[in-house]
Amino acid sequence: MSHNSFGHLFRFTTWGESHGPAIGCVVDGCPPNIDINEAFIQRFLDERKPGTSRFVTQRKEPDAVKILSGVFEGKTTGTPISLMIENTDQRSKDYSEIKTRYRPGHADFTYDAKYGIRDYRGGGRSSARETASRVAAAAVARKVLGDSIKITGGVVQIGTETIDRARADWSTVRDNPFWCPDPVAAKAWEEYLDSIRKDGSSVGAILEVRASGVPAGWGAPVYGKLDADLASAMMSINAAKAVEIGDGMATGGYTGPQNADAIRMKNGAPEFQSNHAGGILGGISNGDDIVVRLAIKPTSSMLTPVPSIDADGHEIDVRTKGRHDPCVGIRGVPVAEAMMALVLADHKLRHRGQVG
Amino acid sequence: MSHNSFGHLFRFTTWGESHGPAIGCVVDGCPPNIDINEAFIQRFLDERKPGTSRFVTQRKEPDAVKILSGVFEGKTTGTPISLMIENTDQRSKDYSEIKTRYRPGHADFTYDAKYGIRDYRGGGRSSARETASRVAAAAVARKVLGDSIKITGGVVQIGTETIDRARADWSTVRDNPFWCPDPVAAKAWEEYLDSIRKDGSSVGAILEVRASGVPAGWGAPVYGKLDADLASAMMSINAAKAVEIGDGMATGGYTGPQNADAIRMKNGAPEFQSNHAGGILGGISNGDDIVVRLAIKPTSSMLTPVPSIDADGHEIDVRTKGRHDPCVGIRGVPVAEAMMALVLADHKLRHRGQVG
Amino acid sequence: MSHNSFGHLFRFTTWGESHGPAIGCVVDGCPPNIDINEAFIQRFLDERKPGTSRFVTQRKEPDAVKILSGVFEGKTTGTPISLMIENTDQRSKDYSEIKTRYRPGHADFTYDAKYGIRDYRGGGRSSARETASRVAAAAVARKVLGDSIKITGGVVQIGTETIDRARADWSTVRDNPFWCPDPVAAKAWEEYLDSIRKDGSSVGAILEVRASGVPAGWGAPVYGKLDADLASAMMSINAAKAVEIGDGMATGGYTGPQNADAIRMKNGAPEFQSNHAGGILGGISNGDDIVVRLAIKPTSSMLTPVPSIDADGHEIDVRTKGRHDPCVGIRGVPVAEAMMALVLADHKLRHRGQVG
Amino acid sequence: MSHNSFGHLFRFTTWGESHGPAIGCVVDGCPPNIDINEAFIQRFLDERKPGTSRFVTQRKEPDAVKILSGVFEGKTTGTPISLMIENTDQRSKDYSEIKTRYRPGHADFTYDAKYGIRDYRGGGRSSARETASRVAAAAVARKVLGDSIKITGGVVQIGTETIDRARADWSTVRDNPFWCPDPVAAKAWEEYLDSIRKDGSSVGAILEVRASGVPAGWGAPVYGKLDADLASAMMSINAAKAVEIGDGMATGGYTGPQNADAIRMKNGAPEFQSNHAGGILGGISNGDDIVVRLAIKPTSSMLTPVPSIDADGHEIDVRTKGRHDPCVGIRGVPVAEAMMALVLADHKLRHRGQVG
Repeated sequence: MSHNSFGHLFRFTTWGESHGPAIGCVVDGCPPNIDINEAFIQRFLDERKPGTSRFVTQRKEPDAVKILSGVFEGKTTGTPISLMIENTDQRSKDYSEIKTRYRPGHADFTYDAKYGIRDYRGGGRSSARETASRVAAAAVARKVLGDSIKITGGVVQIGTETIDRARADWSTVRDNPFWCPDPVAAKAWEEYLDSIRKDGSSVGAILEVRASGVPAGWGAPVYGKLDADLASAMMSINAAKAVEIGDGMATGGYTGPQNADAIRMKNGAPEFQSNHAGGILGGISNGDDIVVRLAIKPTSSMLTPVPSIDADGHEIDVRTKGRHDPCVGIRGVPVAEAMMALVLADHKLRHRGQVG
Repeated sequence: MSHNSFGHLFRFTTWGESHGPAIGCVVDGCPPNIDINEAFIQRFLDERKPGTSRFVTQRKEPDAVKILSGVFEGKTTGTPISLMIENTDQRSKDYSEIKTRYRPGHADFTYDAKYGIRDYRGGGRSSARETASRVAAAAVARKVLGDSIKITGGVVQIGTETIDRARADWSTVRDNPFWCPDPVAAKAWEEYLDSIRKDGSSVGAILEVRASGVPAGWGAPVYGKLDADLASAMMSINAAKAVEIGDGMATGGYTGPQNADAIRMKNGAPEFQSNHAGGILGGISNGDDIVVRLAIKPTSSMLTPVPSIDADGHEIDVRTKGRHDPCVGIRGVPVAEAMMALVLADHKLRHRGQVG
Repeated sequence: MSHNSFGHLFRFTTWGESHGPAIGCVVDGCPPNIDINEAFIQRFLDERKPGTSRFVTQRKEPDAVKILSGVFEGKTTGTPISLMIENTDQRSKDYSEIKTRYRPGHADFTYDAKYGIRDYRGGGRSSARETASRVAAAAVARKVLGDSIKITGGVVQIGTETIDRARADWSTVRDNPFWCPDPVAAKAWEEYLDSIRKDGSSVGAILEVRASGVPAGWGAPVYGKLDADLASAMMSINAAKAVEIGDGMATGGYTGPQNADAIRMKNGAPEFQSNHAGGILGGISNGDDIVVRLAIKPTSSMLTPVPSIDADGHEIDVRTKGRHDPCVGIRGVPVAEAMMALVLADHKLRHRGQVG
Repeated sequence: MSHNSFGHLFRFTTWGESHGPAIGCVVDGCPPNIDINEAFIQRFLDERKPGTSRFVTQRKEPDAVKILSGVFEGKTTGTPISLMIENTDQRSKDYSEIKTRYRPGHADFTYDAKYGIRDYRGGGRSSARETASRVAAAAVARKVLGDSIKITGGVVQIGTETIDRARADWSTVRDNPFWCPDPVAAKAWEEYLDSIRKDGSSVGAILEVRASGVPAGWGAPVYGKLDADLASAMMSINAAKAVEIGDGMATGGYTGPQNADAIRMKNGAPEFQSNHAGGILGGISNGDDIVVRLAIKPTSSMLTPVPSIDADGHEIDVRTKGRHDPCVGIRGVPVAEAMMALVLADHKLRHRGQVG
């Protein structure tokens, strides 16, 4: 049991605090002879890094990845791949305010309750900064999956603003600062999020990640289910509060006929006529697109003061100043894509191991 | 990596198919010197077993549990506890229809895609019958948790019918056939579900499970998070399509102030003024009630024919006759409670192991 | 972490006490579509079962295995295989003597120190009876390995009596009651062991297990090493006190040239000219025979009284009467073979999962 | 399943190749609030590092450890501890000779057989350099164990030279370059090893590691046995070929009475009158000293040419020049001590988790 690891055959372990010297991960179990280099990994880190638009935190981190092991002359060797990202923006700022004052909605109180100690600087281990390690590990996972599997994530709701599914074009998610597949909605969201930001408030979001090209048969029947692993993976993302597969919560309101995905043959292969199931039946992929959604709560850092307590049990009010994301969900998209890639790579190897 | 196991320090492995000679589980890691006997476990199995009302399947299974190991003179010994339930209702019925015909929404197609073979009788390994093993294992988990932790599950929505939260009284869930905490709604649901049943249709449900008395500090920061483990646990339940912690998907629509849970002191201890977080912050319990919801899709067994294919790739229409649940979600309540108990017992031991 | 499980992709979990209703195991991760039936498994159990000669315990146990799951119409389905052996020789004998009196060399004292409780009847969980479950699981493992891999175990030393390697013919091990590859030594051992038995004494043994046909490349570099897993597997056998790979302890006395295994080509493939390494280099198989030896201490059950204590801390003398093995090492051979098969099957799947 | 990890609750994962930019490890599961700093860890690394006497390799590596995470203001926080050691002695030497020529006894051939690729520089991942990471991780483990547990390792045999047990004084192991507990033997070994070194030969060794102060009750009954985990840990050390617990292989030649460890009471506590068992019964510590021995084969690097093949299947002769250890076993002592500490720390937490 490794609290900070994920996966079985393709397994990674992350380490590092927001304001320590570095963060990183070790990817264990990667097959040998796969082309990989720092530039390829960096591309994904750059998509996640802060400061790319006015709608995300202005913290400046180049997030430059170094490969420390497991790759030789541009190819994986089958030995553990150690990836490190140095922390460069460790301002010598005054953290005394959060040292003993529990920010509501953050993990300050629970870490202290658990460990009796925490690196409080910038959220320490509970900072979303840890997710850079996942994105780096996932770049390797994407190589394991190969080009036939496409993973695309986006934001389908920001606060009260939703997309129009009829307008959704997932190929456009990188054309706007929100990873929004609906270009019209994306335009409207600028104004909406500007107002949230100016108010010093924050807002939640709903993310969707889709994987196409996954063959039928990946997964496992009972506890290593593909959907259970995806649920665990997505819920492990900071601020995630819910995970849906396919139609998700809505299926609770369906009748059987409403929920049924008919199957027909097309070019000699089964084709599902709808995808309420999100590509997974009985914990195993059915060959259709894997569809996962997750809710990211609004960041708890905001100007509105909230009643709280300090480490000595005094009642206080907490107001968070500083460089925060008005909607942390936006930067969650590359992370959710990463978790999809990491789960699928693990299941690819697990399937090959058991079934051949 | 054991595909059919769950948990780390308190770990169980289930085995068995719907129409094999028996099903069961092995519970490994249970602390010694805990009072347990078959009657205590049976009580929970009886809550789950079929045939208790006209709203659930009429299959008759006594589901009598036997303790085969790990308990000596009424106490656990610290060695693995083997629990077995013999299958007694294995009708010699004709399964040739589902042998090669893939029922849409079921795991027939994906099992064949994965393994190239399956025990098709009654759903085999993918049958919800497997969940009896979980309920048995969870009876042991409840003993590990002790009396101070109360776990209560219920149905908060059946198809289009919801409860009125203002009327909810969780102490009444066992007073109606639906585990419904709203007695007025429960009454209305009878008529609604009768009509579904008479139509040979089925309907989804939303379940909620609450655990009170969990101390602050259980869980882990990144991948062994309490909420990630709960998500995995709940998603592993047959027909589950979504998991919410606290306010779940709704938090995606909240602003920061709407989502904030203020903290005040009461009798020298922190008290949360609301529980949007569902009792978990940063993957660690905060001392408030743990609140989880899950969506169970309508069973795919129904009289309406659905286009499908057979194992040879012929297009067919599938209609399912026989003893099925109009709303499988109802019998999911004891299972969801079980998974909550199993996750919490594991985290109790993990916390004790690492932190002392 | 499951204390009673072994393996990763091919993983089994055993349960059961010597005098409980049954013992058994769950084999998880077995590939699908492998022919298996009870008769095949039974063959290996029969080799291990007591009462086959006057040199082993006279306890009568038919050790009849039942397959409870995971096999359908004679083939594995990829789901967990549950195997059960009922205990039939649970004499209602008086165990009060060992209830509170710690037999030196047995696990009575340490189980009590750990758990504060134990099923003392017949050794409970620490009885060698548990190894029947391993032998059953290993029958499945042998099927996973296929016919090209041959596993042969034998006894190469009993007490002070050793074999003459020049006379060793491993095809004869089943021709004598000792699994001895040297027919001349086997003859001499009869008299030797008769005298040990008549004295009410016991004697240790050294076992050797060889696997031929293992391809080069199975194993892993650092902690999942093939030799490390074999060491763990063999040391987990009751009464094992040492494990050697290849020349083992003797290599500590070698010079480099004495230890070197030269390589030449033969029929286009590498051929090792000697096998000091026991078929493993850097944790990975080299294609030569895998050779493992283990020492089994004499059973601590004997007529000679030994100073000990009871559970209340009184000094006592303990003398063990009853049906014991004069040399438990003999019946260890099928178990050591089983562990070799179980480790190799796991590594076969792990190699396939990572490398393809 | 993580090939490069060891342990369950106290778990570490190592990474890095001999001639990459760095090596290191991640320690996961360490309890919080333990004092630790780089200087404490460095002390153990300095004991292992090369160049400390003429009897070990003259490679110069400062082996300076950096703590990158998991420690805040001098205390562990319960989050993963990342330790890194930069490789500074990466000579731009010509490795073309071992690129395609398989050194007998090394892992060159088996790595290629497994992965089809390897970082051949200085042995890559199979280099004993990896063990520096273990020593660093073990420094943390020692802190988890506390001062009451003393771990002492030494060399009890070098090639044909053994110690006289009557003269053994384990407090003197650091007073000679061999970690030899017999000062007289240590003197004689200088001449012996000088001659081996001058011949360009190498020699094996037998190491012994002892842990005192381990309470009775650590371990587990069947597969997570304390001795099985120690066997796996010791066999994972480079060049290890055998592991003994207590009297080890010799017990195969004992009679029951010879093997018996009598127990008497002393000052109200049990006291074993001998320790043939090496402190472990039934996989669980009995309170006496844990005693483990392991054989380290002679390094395969030597001046004597040995027949081998190259990657293209040509027959060649291989002679290894350069800075090698005449007896790699000597530098194995701090590593074997490290593995003892790592296994015990894990079992301490596992015991606490299950039993409390």
